[in-house]
Amino acid sequence: MSRSFAELDRFFNPKGVAVIGASKSFAKTGTQILFSILAGGFKGGIYPINPKETEILGLKAYPSLKETPSGADLAIICVQARLVPQVIIECGEAGIGFGIVISSGFSEVSREGKDQEEEILKAAQKGGMRIIGPNCMGLVSSGVNFHALMNMLIPMAGSASVISQSGTIGSLTSIYGSEQSIGFSKFISTGNETDLRTEDFIEYLASDPQTKVISAFVEGIKNGKRFIEVAKEAAMRKPLIVLKGGTTEAGAKAAVSHTGSIAGSKAVYNAMVRQTGIIQARDERDMVDLIKAFSLLPLPKGRNVGITGAWGGLAVLASDACAKTGLALSQLSRESIEELNNILPPFWSHGNPVDVTGAGLGGDFVMLTKPIEVLLRDENVDAVIWMVPALGSLFQKVTARMDPRFSEHFPKTALGSLAPQEMEMAKHIIKLKEKHKKPLLAILIGLYGRDGSEHIRFLEDNGVPVYETTHQAAMVLSKLVEYKEYKETRGNMDT
Amino acid sequence: MSRSFAELDRFFNPKGVAVIGASKSFAKTGTQILFSILAGGFKGGIYPINPKETEILGLKAYPSLKETPSGADLAIICVQARLVPQVIIECGEAGIGFGIVISSGFSEVSREGKDQEEEILKAAQKGGMRIIGPNCMGLVSSGVNFHALMNMLIPMAGSASVISQSGTIGSLTSIYGSEQSIGFSKFISTGNETDLRTEDFIEYLASDPQTKVISAFVEGIKNGKRFIEVAKEAAMRKPLIVLKGGTTEAGAKAAVSHTGSIAGSKAVYNAMVRQTGIIQARDERDMVDLIKAFSLLPLPKGRNVGITGAWGGLAVLASDACAKTGLALSQLSRESIEELNNILPPFWSHGNPVDVTGAGLGGDFVMLTKPIEVLLRDENVDAVIWMVPALGSLFQKVTARMDPRFSEHFPKTALGSLAPQEMEMAKHIIKLKEKHKKPLLAILIGLYGRDGSEHIRFLEDNGVPVYETTHQAAMVLSKLVEYKEYKETRGNMDT
Repeated sequence: MSRSFAELDRFFNPKGVAVIGASKSFAKTGTQILFSILAGGFKGGIYPINPKETEILGLKAYPSLKETPSGADLAIICVQARLVPQVIIECGEAGIGFGIVISSGFSEVSREGKDQEEEILKAAQKGGMRIIGPNCMGLVSSGVNFHALMNMLIPMAGSASVISQSGTIGSLTSIYGSEQSIGFSKFISTGNETDLRTEDFIEYLASDPQTKVISAFVEGIKNGKRFIEVAKEAAMRKPLIVLKGGTTEAGAKAAVSHTGSIAGSKAVYNAMVRQTGIIQARDERDMVDLIKAFSLLPLPKGRNVGITGAWGGLAVLASDACAKTGLALSQLSRESIEELNNILPPFWSHGNPVDVTGAGLGGDFVMLTKPIEVLLRDENVDAVIWMVPALGSLFQKVTARMDPRFSEHFPKTALGSLAPQEMEMAKHIIKLKEKHKKPLLAILIGLYGRDGSEHIRFLEDNGVPVYETTHQAAMVLSKLVEYKEYKETRGNMDT
Repeated sequence: MSRSFAELDRFFNPKGVAVIGASKSFAKTGTQILFSILAGGFKGGIYPINPKETEILGLKAYPSLKETPSGADLAIICVQARLVPQVIIECGEAGIGFGIVISSGFSEVSREGKDQEEEILKAAQKGGMRIIGPNCMGLVSSGVNFHALMNMLIPMAGSASVISQSGTIGSLTSIYGSEQSIGFSKFISTGNETDLRTEDFIEYLASDPQTKVISAFVEGIKNGKRFIEVAKEAAMRKPLIVLKGGTTEAGAKAAVSHTGSIAGSKAVYNAMVRQTGIIQARDERDMVDLIKAFSLLPLPKGRNVGITGAWGGLAVLASDACAKTGLALSQLSRESIEELNNILPPFWSHGNPVDVTGAGLGGDFVMLTKPIEVLLRDENVDAVIWMVPALGSLFQKVTARMDPRFSEHFPKTALGSLAPQEMEMAKHIIKLKEKHKKPLLAILIGLYGRDGSEHIRFLEDNGVPVYETTHQAAMVLSKLVEYKEYKETRGNMDT
């Protein structure tokens, strides 16, 4: 446990939390935070502070911090910007050592706000208080059901953690992830980072046993040297995925008015990434797709990939995507080829990608799934990309446009007869995956959306991530390989 | 009208179609094609050919082509590979000048198959017949409700057309597009292209008044010189979006076993793209996203973009994405800034991106939409990217995880009160879009899927395309600008 771990852990395991600025109006952020804490099922003390109310959302309200029972060790501050310094002084007097300042209107808006932000920091330092924010959205610590988020969007519990200078991006990441079977342990919206910064939480999460994957959205890095040190150390312990906003001049300018950060040059950032083993996300979708890969998949032994499916054109694009992201296509062993000759029609591709052709759509999923088993067994194959049909919901949409006299025949066709077997196929895949310990990931053949495709959810719930494009599947796999190679090289250097 | 237009138009406007190899079994491609033609509502003659049946799917079946009433001018051939040459000879004898060979098992599988494919070509040339395929999925011509597709996936009717050497990719493109309000005029699955090739259909579609946007998936180009000529000519008349499979060695190798094509080097292809004004898609998602942009949006005057929304972090990423794809952020006029000062809270970003901050989520959509109007009016702005909330379905999913005692309060919160206004907001946006003739596109803030977000469908139905990531929105816009600049430069060179 690092020093920072013990120091910051109270944010994530508070005994009692005071919400300063909660009221009866749901339009107020304080009320929304209080609501979020209640809805999340937090079992510690919850103390709404409001001089005008005696009861809020069924809880006793307190006129001031002085009046609250002892036990509040975390304050969430949602009052107007100009009142924040005074509130922090009062927190210090009440012996509260940890504060989250939700209030905005500081360095991100004006010179005057910047001065006020410095006042906050001084007050906090004087009172011995550590501060998250200001201009942040709050925090999640799902291990203790502590959800203190302004937008009340409670993610699924699990072992990925998110640090974000943008509350929206962090929150959407965790919610999009939750819809794809990824659970989250902690989410920290760091806002303007006047006291505690991204790098402090990277350090914390590196030591946090509940966190297996760390992701961060950063616009500005105030202390590059410390960031590098901390990121290096963290990346050796667990995957650290970073999405950087403001890598262009236009983006950096936008970042100034967003979080008041000076984004710094792209060249400096790129050098930082090379030194640290950070896994770079290009955009907000990469972020979710990478968290999913690193959460669900083991690291591959090497960069040799086996691809299989019944869709030749997509196998070509998947091969291109692998090559473009630095992966190689495995040379299959003679045993594998022979085994496939015995199962597949004579006109199969006789190599990798294993294209079973339209014959794989004959209403019997063995031809679609058997090659996966062969590839998982082949020692020349380090990871398998599989094209998973999600045709049920596709057909529903397409046949809805048809005359019912015709749509009723649809299930009798080759494609139509495959759809009802999708769940059975998914269950079979999970058995294969559990037997062989190689990364197995899938590309969705159907519609982009997952609605109406229960087997896709089932696959992800059980550790087979599903991607919507050939490029994303190859990209995440290449990042797994790069990370594995980085760890090996650094590990050897260190010993 | 080019020569090829008149020559090929019969494929898309047949008077009568013979389906050779249709039967009573839905497992047979011939039956599936017949089914597709019936389900699509084709009004011309339909003649199932099968010596063993007298009636198929309610239609009179004919023992052979000789027996069919005169009037069949198109044959769709679904018999076993070895029987195809003889069938083509019979077509010639029956005076049928156009054939689509669905059957597979030719150059894509073996040397022997390659010989057989040459036999087909010889037979066709002898009989004066033009051939699509073999190893293809069929054809769609929605103007005459002619849907002759093996997979029976009928797309929405409209003005985009697709040529694809991969039946799956072409078909998924048109189906994914249909789910995003894009209608399709023609889809040609060209398969092995033993006679008619991608370039023939590019030429045809360039002259086709029903086609406004052409897209093509190609693995191999057999006659590069003619492809360039035809693409150049087409690209000056309408957008030509091309996704190339096999741009890497691994992909090219996979293409050989898929369509038997020699993919050719990436360098040659890139030179081709530069010369021709082709709009390049990187993957299967780019393809749909680009078709959507070119189908719905006017070309921008220049590369200056205005961005607005209430989500600062995403505005930063959108700015980065614009800069990375070669777009510039507009310098707003003094009038625009003043106007925004009058509407927005004092802490708005005071520049582009116009970040209205969390204040835009106060349950009143004026603050979210007014900046769009200001940007559309500003003459320094050539195109507008807007972040559209799609929170209704997001909240539904998130609150489903909550204790009902709490979820019932959700609509009273700032975010929750915005959701029911989403459709009203979308209607307002469409009015703005219709008044100003600039490209307006949106980034979806919510979940990736569109289900449960009727206003997103409404926006796309009415000409505002919605993208799921900042990168995709910027990418498509940059391609609109590049295409516009290409046309201007080439246009000037030609005069």
